[in-house]
Amino acid sequence: MIVGKVVGSVVATRKNERLLGSKFMIVDPIENMSENGRIVAVDNVGAGIGEIVLVAMGSAARIGCDLENAPVDAAIVGIVDDSIGLLD
Amino acid sequence: MIVGKVVGSVVATRKNERLLGSKFMIVDPIENMSENGRIVAVDNVGAGIGEIVLVAMGSAARIGCDLENAPVDAAIVGIVDDSIGLLD
Amino acid sequence: MIVGKVVGSVVATRKNERLLGSKFMIVDPIENMSENGRIVAVDNVGAGIGEIVLVAMGSAARIGCDLENAPVDAAIVGIVDDSIGLLD
Amino acid sequence: MIVGKVVGSVVATRKNERLLGSKFMIVDPIENMSENGRIVAVDNVGAGIGEIVLVAMGSAARIGCDLENAPVDAAIVGIVDDSIGLLD
Amino acid sequence: MIVGKVVGSVVATRKNERLLGSKFMIVDPIENMSENGRIVAVDNVGAGIGEIVLVAMGSAARIGCDLENAPVDAAIVGIVDDSIGLLD
Repeated sequence: MIVGKVVGSVVATRKNERLLGSKFMIVDPIENMSENGRIVAVDNVGAGIGEIVLVAMGSAARIGCDLENAPVDAAIVGIVDDSIGLLD
Repeated sequence: MIVGKVVGSVVATRKNERLLGSKFMIVDPIENMSENGRIVAVDNVGAGIGEIVLVAMGSAARIGCDLENAPVDAAIVGIVDDSIGLLD
Repeated sequence: MIVGKVVGSVVATRKNERLLGSKFMIVDPIENMSENGRIVAVDNVGAGIGEIVLVAMGSAARIGCDLENAPVDAAIVGIVDDSIGLLD
Repeated sequence: MIVGKVVGSVVATRKNERLLGSKFMIVDPIENMSENGRIVAVDNVGAGIGEIVLVAMGSAARIGCDLENAPVDAAIVGIVDDSIGLLD
Repeated sequence: MIVGKVVGSVVATRKNERLLGSKFMIVDPIENMSENGRIVAVDNVGAGIGEIVLVAMGSAARIGCDLENAPVDAAIVGIVDDSIGLLD
């Protein structure tokens, strides 16, 4: 997983029908994380813009969030409220 | 997922038979996205050149787009028509 | 998927037995594609050195090419014979 | 897999319920490893801050650690206590 | 897959029990390959330090090497003994 900040959201009216009801958030990985840019993740925990979140990627996003048959490859699965060494 | 712009398409007459009927679009990720270059994605929503789209990658592309047994690792799954913070 | 040029091949006499009969081609992604270097892909369409091909990666390569139980993570699944915007 | 050093941990009170009980460690890949930054991995072996660990990524983390239905894409699966050529 | 050179090995006494008996080799991708650093791969073919090998990554490593339930995301699946264009 990676830790990032929710910096925006995306709306797609015309989309794969299995994405109906999903909220697409733009997540900017925090400095030092293993991602070279922003990702769009489905929100699984009610995250808002500005929050620091935990994002799961790959099949884990689909299978872990009851979206097994949806074309989803990233999901916000936690809101970070404490940490040690995150920005050191 | 990532957001990108459809910048072209690819035709392959000789191909894996499970790809028959698939349209291959070239997607250029928008600035700041987590991809270091263009990808070729199967079109699942009728996207045209110049449109800004949402692309799912990995097993999500196959399984989420009813292409479970096809050698497909990326699919256009939405057309972006609104956003907050996408280019900030 | 990505588009690349077949630039060589690899022979491995000692290998996992499920790879027997597979041809391993070296594919160099074309400029601007989302891959930071060459990959070795199993040939699923009879591609030759010098040809421009479509490569599927990850589980799509195994499952889409009837190699479900083989340790294969990339496959050439089409030979590109036309394109729009590929090198723009 | 990659080898990294545990440099911290992350707490997420609000999270996907399948993550309850999981410990999220921040792992910094050692120099020369194939990862361009830190990852957050579930701890499967009781690793502590400062330890050098082996991290599995992707579906292997879920399936190999009895977290098959959880949104987990990285797990600490070993504590490195000896090596040859790791830092050469 | 990628081609790399075996440059070392890693020992982890405390590890996920499904990794018992696995040998962890450090593989350094050869120049021009699509990996930005070293990976740790389970040895499936009896590779030794200094050998040039073929490495499969992702679910292919688990499923293709009879390690379906182990937290393994990379495996050495062939020893390269001949090639065309590998280093051009």
